[in-house]
Amino acid sequence: MPKILSINAGSSSLKFQLIEMTNEEEITKGLFERIGLENSVFTMATAEKKIEKVVDITDHLMAVDMLLEHLLSEGVVSSYDEIDGLGHRVVHGGELYSDSVLITDEVIEKLEEISSFAPLHNPANIVGIKAFEKALPNTPSVAIFDTAFHQTMPEKAFLYALPYEYYEKYGIRKYGFHGTSHKYVTERAAKILNRPLEDTRLISCHLGNGASIAAVKGGKSVDTSMGFTPLAGVIMGTRSGNIDPALIPYMMERTNESAEEVVNVLNKKSGLLGISGFSSDLRDITEAAEQGNHRAQLALDVFTDRIHQHIGQYAAGMGGVDAIIFTAGIGENSAIVRQKVMNGLEFMGVYFDPSLNNIRGEEAYISFPHSPVKVLIIPTNEEIMLARDTVRIAGIPVPEEAEKVAVE
Amino acid sequence: MPKILSINAGSSSLKFQLIEMTNEEEITKGLFERIGLENSVFTMATAEKKIEKVVDITDHLMAVDMLLEHLLSEGVVSSYDEIDGLGHRVVHGGELYSDSVLITDEVIEKLEEISSFAPLHNPANIVGIKAFEKALPNTPSVAIFDTAFHQTMPEKAFLYALPYEYYEKYGIRKYGFHGTSHKYVTERAAKILNRPLEDTRLISCHLGNGASIAAVKGGKSVDTSMGFTPLAGVIMGTRSGNIDPALIPYMMERTNESAEEVVNVLNKKSGLLGISGFSSDLRDITEAAEQGNHRAQLALDVFTDRIHQHIGQYAAGMGGVDAIIFTAGIGENSAIVRQKVMNGLEFMGVYFDPSLNNIRGEEAYISFPHSPVKVLIIPTNEEIMLARDTVRIAGIPVPEEAEKVAVE
Repeated sequence: MPKILSINAGSSSLKFQLIEMTNEEEITKGLFERIGLENSVFTMATAEKKIEKVVDITDHLMAVDMLLEHLLSEGVVSSYDEIDGLGHRVVHGGELYSDSVLITDEVIEKLEEISSFAPLHNPANIVGIKAFEKALPNTPSVAIFDTAFHQTMPEKAFLYALPYEYYEKYGIRKYGFHGTSHKYVTERAAKILNRPLEDTRLISCHLGNGASIAAVKGGKSVDTSMGFTPLAGVIMGTRSGNIDPALIPYMMERTNESAEEVVNVLNKKSGLLGISGFSSDLRDITEAAEQGNHRAQLALDVFTDRIHQHIGQYAAGMGGVDAIIFTAGIGENSAIVRQKVMNGLEFMGVYFDPSLNNIRGEEAYISFPHSPVKVLIIPTNEEIMLARDTVRIAGIPVPEEAEKVAVE
Repeated sequence: MPKILSINAGSSSLKFQLIEMTNEEEITKGLFERIGLENSVFTMATAEKKIEKVVDITDHLMAVDMLLEHLLSEGVVSSYDEIDGLGHRVVHGGELYSDSVLITDEVIEKLEEISSFAPLHNPANIVGIKAFEKALPNTPSVAIFDTAFHQTMPEKAFLYALPYEYYEKYGIRKYGFHGTSHKYVTERAAKILNRPLEDTRLISCHLGNGASIAAVKGGKSVDTSMGFTPLAGVIMGTRSGNIDPALIPYMMERTNESAEEVVNVLNKKSGLLGISGFSSDLRDITEAAEQGNHRAQLALDVFTDRIHQHIGQYAAGMGGVDAIIFTAGIGENSAIVRQKVMNGLEFMGVYFDPSLNNIRGEEAYISFPHSPVKVLIIPTNEEIMLARDTVRIAGIPVPEEAEKVAVE
């Protein structure tokens, strides 16, 4: 009964989920917040019980120790040997990793080398990897990259129209993110559509606090909206998405800020928050818009319009589309966003059925049965993907009968 | 027989065309280059004759005087009174001008105020206006803006997802350019399609050394690819179009350049030139690609792919499209670009006919007769639009019979 711990380490957080792989069942999951600050918060939930503790956790190693102790003391595992593998989410794999990889010292060194690509994320991911390495030195661990799925993009899609040597010298290109999620939902979609993945043209809309759209042809990412960093593409909770690049020096001059400060505004004070002026949370925006708040309505309109247009863009990119998928927090839960995004795509064969749309967080068709292009809600599950790749890459045996169920 | 002089003044250049408005016939046209430098070049062509002179022209006023002298000495006009109006192209009208305007001292003041929006263009346009004002003080002159046609864009289309006060305080929004051209070709398209302009949904691809796409619904621009400046959107001869905005501080750090210098690279060393490494001219790129040059092929692919995707984007934006228009240097002349851009849009009803595509610079259908979405080549004519607006705004009488011909 192999068990895999999926891990997502941020700079002051650590998310985990323990999964039993014979039937891909979640055994426990939880979260550390405010690591390194006062009053850190540890929450953990099993089928029977919820734990919440507020205590000062000085670093990730202390968090890992605390997690492992609780797995024992709460009877989740009877020995650490029961944890067969660790699957670490790593944001940026650059061009080095087009698949998940078994973590070795050499891999860690390489991840440190490409940290400049994701200075906020990769160092935190590495801290998580090292903390588990210290606590469970004999457990195989695997790095699963947000960028890896998009490494199949052709050069004409990933290249910016900059001097070519910027790509060669500095690695400047489109990498794309949310790859684990786009991969999960497009694989699920092929199963739901009952078609071979190789014969599908899918557009996956991962709409959470970060948002990205991917064009996935035959199971391979051929384009995606995020870029060199997760700032690019459509608008998000606090991120601007694409803007005229000439605005940066203009804003620097007007606001007397440095380029880093301006980009910080684009990352943290823009998007839904920037337009509405009061919230980055789509639920707040929707509520205020319903009550007639003009700026909230505007934020909602800009958000859904740009996603709507992106779908047309990627349909053109693939010469047509078989299904459009909504996933992640907003994609799974916001009926109004789905409706606004789908409105007016009949010209390309999308017949959205509003009567099916009043649904949250479960797999469902939301297009008419006769619609040539299907529209689907598919809740994402990045933790399962981390665990699956850990099993696959580390060669952890999973009983055969059970594996079939898992893949189904 | 009213005659209008259309004028396009750049920082070291001045283009002109004298048009007889009863039948919209070009009487003469020409160009000053290298104004303010040594060995300035003056060229002028009438139906009978071509003039080319190399002489030091110190400023725009001297150019204007020289032009007027030649109009007399070459017998183009017998008196300056024959010039009934001056139509000046002005790049940026900000939010002040949603239509052309009769130039007064107050208008010039306002144009100077918004010069920070287009620091390379507006000051040069103003120099041209002032030079003609001195030479022909009693001739009415009209400013025609590249941005005016796009002032119909709804707020959700023109707004960036930045803090809202950046729009209110600094005028940061999408303005769009090439408006005069997009307006001309979409009006022509309605006539060619024999449909009321109000009932059309058109996508206009102005592909020259600068390139922009516009979505035009019922004769009104509802979206366009250029932004706050002409850098944004699709890739161009030397311009990058959209990139991840976070790349600017990254490039600054890597190349040790200022934000202005980086944006200068985006404007002048990117696009087709940046990818190919040798030319910004699509003819060179096409030729090299045919000979197997990988980087030239890549430049061509990136160029056409992003335009192709933009068409899908704007079709989605308008809920479908009736016709797609190619115009300007590349759009009118490059069969390979049109073919690559149109390839794979059948899913949205575009049936491009390659056998009609081997054509240059003339109005033509290049879609199959049964294609639900028509594809058209329409040579642009910005000079005629300048002249028409000059007549309309300055209230210059044009004989009625003739006017009907002109509109036809």
